Amino acid sequence: MFNEAIPYKIYLEENEMPKAWYNLRADMKNKPAPLLNPATQKPMTKEELRPVFCDALIDQELDDTTAYFPIPEEIRSFYQMYRPSPLVRAYFLEKKLGTPAKIYYKFEGNNTSGSHKLNSAIAQAYYAKQQGLKGVTTETGAGQWGTALSMACSYFDLDCQVYMVKVSYEQKPFRREVMRTYGASVTPSPSMSTEVGRKILEAHPGTTGSLGCAISEAVEMANKQEGYRYVLGSVLNQVMLHQSVIGLETKAALDKYGITPDIIIGCAGGGSNLGGLIAPFMGEKLRGEKDYRFIAVEPASCPSFTRGTFAYDFCDTGAVCPLAKMYTLGSNFIPSANHAGGLRYHGMSPVLSQLYHDGLMEATSVVQTDVFEAAELFARVEGILPAPESSHAIRVAIDEALKCKETGEEKTIVFGLTGTGYFDMFAYEKFHDGKMSDYIPTDEEIAESVSTLPVVNE
Amino acid sequence: MFNEAIPYKIYLEENEMPKAWYNLRADMKNKPAPLLNPATQKPMTKEELRPVFCDALIDQELDDTTAYFPIPEEIRSFYQMYRPSPLVRAYFLEKKLGTPAKIYYKFEGNNTSGSHKLNSAIAQAYYAKQQGLKGVTTETGAGQWGTALSMACSYFDLDCQVYMVKVSYEQKPFRREVMRTYGASVTPSPSMSTEVGRKILEAHPGTTGSLGCAISEAVEMANKQEGYRYVLGSVLNQVMLHQSVIGLETKAALDKYGITPDIIIGCAGGGSNLGGLIAPFMGEKLRGEKDYRFIAVEPASCPSFTRGTFAYDFCDTGAVCPLAKMYTLGSNFIPSANHAGGLRYHGMSPVLSQLYHDGLMEATSVVQTDVFEAAELFARVEGILPAPESSHAIRVAIDEALKCKETGEEKTIVFGLTGTGYFDMFAYEKFHDGKMSDYIPTDEEIAESVSTLPVVNE
Repeated sequence: MFNEAIPYKIYLEENEMPKAWYNLRADMKNKPAPLLNPATQKPMTKEELRPVFCDALIDQELDDTTAYFPIPEEIRSFYQMYRPSPLVRAYFLEKKLGTPAKIYYKFEGNNTSGSHKLNSAIAQAYYAKQQGLKGVTTETGAGQWGTALSMACSYFDLDCQVYMVKVSYEQKPFRREVMRTYGASVTPSPSMSTEVGRKILEAHPGTTGSLGCAISEAVEMANKQEGYRYVLGSVLNQVMLHQSVIGLETKAALDKYGITPDIIIGCAGGGSNLGGLIAPFMGEKLRGEKDYRFIAVEPASCPSFTRGTFAYDFCDTGAVCPLAKMYTLGSNFIPSANHAGGLRYHGMSPVLSQLYHDGLMEATSVVQTDVFEAAELFARVEGILPAPESSHAIRVAIDEALKCKETGEEKTIVFGLTGTGYFDMFAYEKFHDGKMSDYIPTDEEIAESVSTLPVVNE
Repeated sequence: MFNEAIPYKIYLEENEMPKAWYNLRADMKNKPAPLLNPATQKPMTKEELRPVFCDALIDQELDDTTAYFPIPEEIRSFYQMYRPSPLVRAYFLEKKLGTPAKIYYKFEGNNTSGSHKLNSAIAQAYYAKQQGLKGVTTETGAGQWGTALSMACSYFDLDCQVYMVKVSYEQKPFRREVMRTYGASVTPSPSMSTEVGRKILEAHPGTTGSLGCAISEAVEMANKQEGYRYVLGSVLNQVMLHQSVIGLETKAALDKYGITPDIIIGCAGGGSNLGGLIAPFMGEKLRGEKDYRFIAVEPASCPSFTRGTFAYDFCDTGAVCPLAKMYTLGSNFIPSANHAGGLRYHGMSPVLSQLYHDGLMEATSVVQTDVFEAAELFARVEGILPAPESSHAIRVAIDEALKCKETGEEKTIVFGLTGTGYFDMFAYEKFHDGKMSDYIPTDEEIAESVSTLPVVNE
């Protein structure tokens, strides 16, 4: 049943693996807006960022002209543990759908953290170690980033302190245990261990937490402790840079067999996976060399792109972080408690936000029952149990493939399968038991949350 | 840090993948003893086995002369979803240990079932489908086999009824949910749905169940339902045959780079992984072409090889199955409730039992705290979270590598990393919290359990 000329799974040889990350911003005409100091409303300087971020990462964060950053050899060694990740032809899914479309997925779940997050975690841990730090603090929502970071810190012998959104902490005790296996400490957020946590708990005693709140706590703890810095698993420019390894590998694998995709699809929470996957392809589009359709898929319960506002906003609930210009639902936005998995951040990568604003990519939202239907179908035919996050991309890949079935077009669709769902079986159980809700925020709820946006004179 | 001439992870090309399973029995001078009918004590005939097993599988079960069985194309297509599995050089572990030994592991956890069990599950489901059956019944202990079989049955649209050892059913709700995702029904065993289950519950109301008991229930249900047969994930000759794909791939990968292992190590519960991994190497040894050391590693809490008796015994607690000649602790043996994970079967593959009896392989047992220490070390340096079962092999691979450190020998060690530990975080938690017990059965306990062996006149 397979095309003998093209392997079913395309693996790159070790010498074909990327030796540099690609900085998409270098090719953008309209650069993403700079981070602003909330007090002065002026662009954050390197000096202002030093208490929070590692020095080398600040350089990467602020540099929008250098196109390639060499990947240090120690990081490339670590990448070899689990990379290159396979680019898989979804033959079984195509057959099941009866579509003439050719579907490929880049599978990033083949490592213990279970997702693509490790690509940036190991880079951030490396630079923290290089700077002689003792440890790092971070937040985690669904737990993928926290797991990835704890693995990376264990590798470089760094202390790792994770603030985990309370609802996830309680629903996913095994995620916590994996982080402990790698030596991390895990605190449910909001907690009484930080000022901002105490403040939030006082105002909202029953809160189940949010990413924005956990970020505030992690940043506070990084500031408080000598030799610590804060690290973040998505949204930031530096993260998009590290995640470009996904897209670079995907492009190299496709180029090797002369395949040109028509549509590239990724789920979008903060944008790290999508930004990484599309980077080199978007670069070609920006340089006018080729054209592609890019589709960001977000949950209908947290629709930053499709129903948010493009404006400066706080990155966190406690308003301790710089302001970023992005599509946002307001930093107080908390998705319905029924929402399963990650993709629950109120904002979106400034890089992707700018590209979307400029009409260079599309976005769509899907309700979670449809997502889990796609997830289960995919699991049964392709044999991989997908994470809820990744299944947003599966849903839209299937929908696009079904459109091809109607029109008879043989489009080539590539999507990012960011991770596995082993720790999401509570959500699958709800789905099996018909207890999953498809709550969508009302216009009033979004308007109220967006009304908290800071006033910024651009 | 890597040897550029040999890839860090050796993947076979698709055209290098095995096209036939290897039947080790064909090269054995002392064949494993036949299954006996417990009533007549005569070898089970094909006709007698037909109500229980699929026809094609009976042929494979009883054939000890045909060396190679072609792998049907549909099974090879399915194998391509997750095979070839990588043979990984454990550079990071070697470095951590400071050993001159070269360690390789064959990683079978890269599929949603999380273990090697899928290799045989898909074969058994295929033959059941070929025979026009409606469905199959089976038992599962730690849950890996049940998960694998539910995936395989989903692929061929067969009904799948799983009897899951009660203690696992309760400790691993997520395992159950994965099986449901693939459409299987899961019943905790012993249950009131079978005669044998009711009998066992009456005699031992508080029992947490055992594999032997779940087997009895599954066999009874296969007999009771039109169009159903029973399938088993280990112990049987047919399973060893299917699992030979592990060893064949391993050998092809090593041969490709001219590497000859000195020691081959695998964990052993019923023997499916170990039997598969060593098959082609043991074949060379049996034919006098090469020599290798083979080490079976079993839990000290269920030590069939190292403390069992080589004799005919029941394969199940309810004594509804044929008798098999094997190393056994007695069909009533139940490992301590503290024992984590699988490897809890009272007996051992008749093929491996015969080889062990003939001095062709070694066996050793390890306590579980030592196993989890090895597991955590491995997770931290190699980045894969291993299953408790697999970690038995890791433990002994580390011990052998440390011996090399003392002697300065550059031995090549290959071990089977059968699966991932995502569903075993309860056990990891116990380990982290210092609550893991290393209970070892007393001589009296084993003597009592072995005293139930049937009297067979060979």
